[in-house]
Amino acid sequence: MDKINIGTKAYVYPMPVSIVGATVGGKPNFLAVAWLNMVNFNPPIVMLSLGGRKYTVEGIEEHKTFSVNFPAIDLMEKTDYCGLVSGRKADKSQLFEVFYGELKTAPMVKECPLSLECKLHSTHSMPSNTLYFGEIVGAYTDERYLTGGKPDMGKMNLFVLTMPDSNYWALDKQLDKAWKVGLKLK
Amino acid sequence: MDKINIGTKAYVYPMPVSIVGATVGGKPNFLAVAWLNMVNFNPPIVMLSLGGRKYTVEGIEEHKTFSVNFPAIDLMEKTDYCGLVSGRKADKSQLFEVFYGELKTAPMVKECPLSLECKLHSTHSMPSNTLYFGEIVGAYTDERYLTGGKPDMGKMNLFVLTMPDSNYWALDKQLDKAWKVGLKLK
Repeated sequence: MDKINIGTKAYVYPMPVSIVGATVGGKPNFLAVAWLNMVNFNPPIVMLSLGGRKYTVEGIEEHKTFSVNFPAIDLMEKTDYCGLVSGRKADKSQLFEVFYGELKTAPMVKECPLSLECKLHSTHSMPSNTLYFGEIVGAYTDERYLTGGKPDMGKMNLFVLTMPDSNYWALDKQLDKAWKVGLKLK
Repeated sequence: MDKINIGTKAYVYPMPVSIVGATVGGKPNFLAVAWLNMVNFNPPIVMLSLGGRKYTVEGIEEHKTFSVNFPAIDLMEKTDYCGLVSGRKADKSQLFEVFYGELKTAPMVKECPLSLECKLHSTHSMPSNTLYFGEIVGAYTDERYLTGGKPDMGKMNLFVLTMPDSNYWALDKQLDKAWKVGLKLK
């Protein structure tokens, strides 16, 4: 076999990039999170995996709410900054223009093309991380990012992350339809 | 506010695309999975969220092993097919060239640029889905996909998925370094 075993130095390729918002100490705080994905279909539940004791977690636990915002490339520096500096050391409440949905304690980022408003469903402890499950109660976008009433990533200019090489990547063109292109192999 | 609330018709943008391999009924079986990500740093643990009672799950539960393979665009049709047709109805054991690592029951896809070999760590029930946590015990790639000993997505030609619009997307160029580009805002 010509495959090389590189041990455990590989993760999931690629990972979405998000800015998670929560109200901490009465102010909006934001954290960059890439270890997230959908975990439940009905109701729709998103999962964040957080290591250590993030400042953001204090807000999630107090208010049982958080937001998940997907930034465009023009927010890459600010997004990265949110992952570099803890809210304990720097006030990140003025970094973005904030808006709220029906949950009054889940600050969302107006500059992001798409924001999910989440109500904490439950948590689950892993060996070094804690999983936060949030039920999506609303999703906010701008008219210009929709196609047929659905968010159209082709209009959003989002970016993704790979680890452990720590690179951000742009997304390119739409290829084909899922749950369809494979029908020809049936 | 000019934001539009589109309800719960939005997920995580974008999602990685993987082919999960398991040994079911003595044969390799493969399932397309996009609801996955890393959930634990030490040890490295990956999570899959699966709905319904997938055929693949029988193999994961019997052998306590599975693989996560990241396909290049040239495998898009076969990947989509793995998500369209259950192993209960079609034998998918011949769809790919298979290889094994140290776990002898986690079939990996040779055609994929990168494969993670996983040992079932635990499971967690959600309202409509079940989460399968797998400890990564090995990662397999080909020499040509490495840069500085790390998997280089720029060489892999991977693709991603968005839902609920069900589109596959190509990845474009590398943008900048994570945990670095935001330093200038400090």
